[in-house]
Amino acid sequence: MTINAHTLAQLAERFDLGLRGDGGIVIEGVATLASAGVGQLAFLANPRYRNELARTTASAVVLRAEDAGNAPVACLVAANPQAAFARIAALFDPRKLPAPGIHASAVIDPSAQVDPRASIGPFVSIGARSTIAAGAIVGAGCVIGDDCVIGTDCELVARVTLVCRVRLGNRVMIHPGAVLGADGFGLAMEAGRWMKVPQLGGVAIGDDCEIGANTTIDRGALDDTVLEEDVRLDNQIQIGHNVRIGAHTAMAGCAGVAGSTKIGRNCLIAGAVGINGHIEICDNVVIHAASTVLNSIDQPGEYSSGTALQDHHTWRRNVARFKHLDELARKLNTLAKDSTQ
Amino acid sequence: MTINAHTLAQLAERFDLGLRGDGGIVIEGVATLASAGVGQLAFLANPRYRNELARTTASAVVLRAEDAGNAPVACLVAANPQAAFARIAALFDPRKLPAPGIHASAVIDPSAQVDPRASIGPFVSIGARSTIAAGAIVGAGCVIGDDCVIGTDCELVARVTLVCRVRLGNRVMIHPGAVLGADGFGLAMEAGRWMKVPQLGGVAIGDDCEIGANTTIDRGALDDTVLEEDVRLDNQIQIGHNVRIGAHTAMAGCAGVAGSTKIGRNCLIAGAVGINGHIEICDNVVIHAASTVLNSIDQPGEYSSGTALQDHHTWRRNVARFKHLDELARKLNTLAKDSTQ
Amino acid sequence: MTINAHTLAQLAERFDLGLRGDGGIVIEGVATLASAGVGQLAFLANPRYRNELARTTASAVVLRAEDAGNAPVACLVAANPQAAFARIAALFDPRKLPAPGIHASAVIDPSAQVDPRASIGPFVSIGARSTIAAGAIVGAGCVIGDDCVIGTDCELVARVTLVCRVRLGNRVMIHPGAVLGADGFGLAMEAGRWMKVPQLGGVAIGDDCEIGANTTIDRGALDDTVLEEDVRLDNQIQIGHNVRIGAHTAMAGCAGVAGSTKIGRNCLIAGAVGINGHIEICDNVVIHAASTVLNSIDQPGEYSSGTALQDHHTWRRNVARFKHLDELARKLNTLAKDSTQ
Repeated sequence: MTINAHTLAQLAERFDLGLRGDGGIVIEGVATLASAGVGQLAFLANPRYRNELARTTASAVVLRAEDAGNAPVACLVAANPQAAFARIAALFDPRKLPAPGIHASAVIDPSAQVDPRASIGPFVSIGARSTIAAGAIVGAGCVIGDDCVIGTDCELVARVTLVCRVRLGNRVMIHPGAVLGADGFGLAMEAGRWMKVPQLGGVAIGDDCEIGANTTIDRGALDDTVLEEDVRLDNQIQIGHNVRIGAHTAMAGCAGVAGSTKIGRNCLIAGAVGINGHIEICDNVVIHAASTVLNSIDQPGEYSSGTALQDHHTWRRNVARFKHLDELARKLNTLAKDSTQ
Repeated sequence: MTINAHTLAQLAERFDLGLRGDGGIVIEGVATLASAGVGQLAFLANPRYRNELARTTASAVVLRAEDAGNAPVACLVAANPQAAFARIAALFDPRKLPAPGIHASAVIDPSAQVDPRASIGPFVSIGARSTIAAGAIVGAGCVIGDDCVIGTDCELVARVTLVCRVRLGNRVMIHPGAVLGADGFGLAMEAGRWMKVPQLGGVAIGDDCEIGANTTIDRGALDDTVLEEDVRLDNQIQIGHNVRIGAHTAMAGCAGVAGSTKIGRNCLIAGAVGINGHIEICDNVVIHAASTVLNSIDQPGEYSSGTALQDHHTWRRNVARFKHLDELARKLNTLAKDSTQ
Repeated sequence: MTINAHTLAQLAERFDLGLRGDGGIVIEGVATLASAGVGQLAFLANPRYRNELARTTASAVVLRAEDAGNAPVACLVAANPQAAFARIAALFDPRKLPAPGIHASAVIDPSAQVDPRASIGPFVSIGARSTIAAGAIVGAGCVIGDDCVIGTDCELVARVTLVCRVRLGNRVMIHPGAVLGADGFGLAMEAGRWMKVPQLGGVAIGDDCEIGANTTIDRGALDDTVLEEDVRLDNQIQIGHNVRIGAHTAMAGCAGVAGSTKIGRNCLIAGAVGINGHIEICDNVVIHAASTVLNSIDQPGEYSSGTALQDHHTWRRNVARFKHLDELARKLNTLAKDSTQ
């Protein structure tokens, strides 16, 4: 058996999962329910895909106990199949970490400190007084400005920019194109012209945060912009200056948060959500896709805005009526009053 | 006549166009109807600009037969004036392709293969086992990770990142800042903390696709994220992991597609459209600007959501009524029932 | 007194501000009302933060005359406290400008001209015929293509791309990841396939413009894409080809403008606003957050679209009614007609 093959029984024991069926089945890879074949393990977590279970040609499936009866193949039973599958899938990740050391092409300020156990890729520049801790990976083309801190085991995949005064905790992962610590959008209008307000704060990112490709997080005007621990941001997100995001909050692609807003812990912000500046959102709030949040939210729960998709011509007629909705409501109220008199 | 001058008669013959007026007129450049002068060719395709035709000072205009009667100058008549103009305009593009060869500063893994007819710019890094085909251009500052394939005559303009397992067909063009193959946003929640789900798939881009500046396309969790041939993505678009986009579909700026969604062939997705995850959109669907698509679409046609722009104070009143629209409708139904009794 | 310490009296005189309280108080830094301590100056401009004034532990506060009576500490009185504070804060900005000169790693075309008083960072490439004026800063990893002009005292912070034919005025600031001059999204459909329309124009950026991180501005198809002087764009904005934006207009994060649209002077475009192509917006227009602008606007004023955030279940009921709003309005009109007969 090659090093990357595991019997079902071994996987069940290693990850503390239930086993149904032949524990001797050998797993050499992972795949989806729809595409897995012999030697591959699939998983069922999202009920949307339940109908694919009966037809699967996987050698085995990770699933909840309640779904095991419907599986045509051997099963690993987990309370949280997605988490169990994530652990097993990691065994099959072909990725090799880069070796420690500094690439010959990197340009590093004499006052910067790079731990010898860190890996600095080609075409990386590191500014004055910045420090890179052990185990950190700074990939090709990253620009690290002055006064930045990169904690233990962080990974900046490639082409990440930390402009200045950006402090990362440990195990922070940042995907390509992300820009942290750019000037906040601070302007004063004077005599008909814009005047730039200096942005003197920094950015503080907690342990275990993940920041997506081409996401931007501006540095604070005076205080820092803050992500608490285990905040997860997808791609193309914009976080304005002096925003604070609570621990374990996750935000999907294309969301944006304007300056000085505070978002609580354990929130789920769906894709393309826009959040106004200078407001507060409490813990445990779910904002559904493409909603706009103009005012503070002080009750946990699920929130939405917008209208549903329709065929374009019906939509046009409805939108035309929406422009007069207040009149329409007044008319109705008058009519209701008249009819009861 | 310089090499970049062509008579109308030559252009008509070369591109199989009708000619009205003096075929000896010399064209040395192209410009808009509004700004073109002597020696310049303009075009009329969008009816919005018809009123500029009568006033044009161009030497000649490319247009449809039905518009030729209104032209004050010589014409080239085309069934598809935009396509005809595109071909003619290409004659006047001053751009010179870079010479083949690898810039001295590039850092290329020994296991990568670069065709000698490819052009690799300054500060490019190329990872293990990646291959670059003949005629491909990899511009300044691009980062190509491990196990990528760049097909014949592809162009990565500059500062493009292919993270890993990204396979481009032939003639794919990618604009600066685009990131393909970053980790999909795959997370499992366990014991109150996020856990990363390994992203083991890749990205497969078909022939003749174009991908805009700062657009992001994540790699799949298990299977690939796929763009079929001739898909055209504008700037700042986000494509989640395991999305599949059908051939000839075009998507305008700032659109976003969440994970595992399938979009059909020949669709037109306008700017700032948000598309939910795990849904299917059939072929030949048009989604109008800034719409949100939450559910699958199984009928070709045009779709929209949202409300129309209004002066802010009227809008506020209407929005306040929208918050009670269901009550309002119930009240109306009651009233209607009462009035018919 | 260190060089970065100033008495209130000195600040009042230098910036022509009123002084209330002890002019001998020494200011060594700036901070927010909520966090400032001894030796620090805070400011009050946004009325939202008025309640923090009474509790401030700052040594002094910059504010309007009308607020001075409520300050528990010494004050600098200004007609425009934000502008006054911006000037004072600049005294405390720790940033050091890079020294003039060209980094050894930069790759510069022989036909490019770089003023000896400009600063060119590591891993910068500069194309044919481009010129960089005195005082300009081109930070690490920037890619400057062919035929670009960078004016006096411009700053390209890092990893900025000017693709080709991009002309910057003086004192233009561009943040990391921005891409100017990429191909506009110009396509013609012919025989069921997309055909690229050459993009022969450029980008012209006026004096004193600021362009945010990961913002994209495409070059024109024939004419230029234009930002007049003192236009301020936040992060992640998309500006399509041939757009023109008037002087002093500011646009917040994640906004997008489709091709060939003209926006007037002194407009304020809030975050996540989407603006259609081929329309005109007059001077002095304010568009509120997340609105969609489909048609031209010819009257100054404030505009909005969209609906307000609600709890998800109430929203679902209202949205279902919106899909039949036109029917509902017809029913009401019929009822009203019947009741008056």
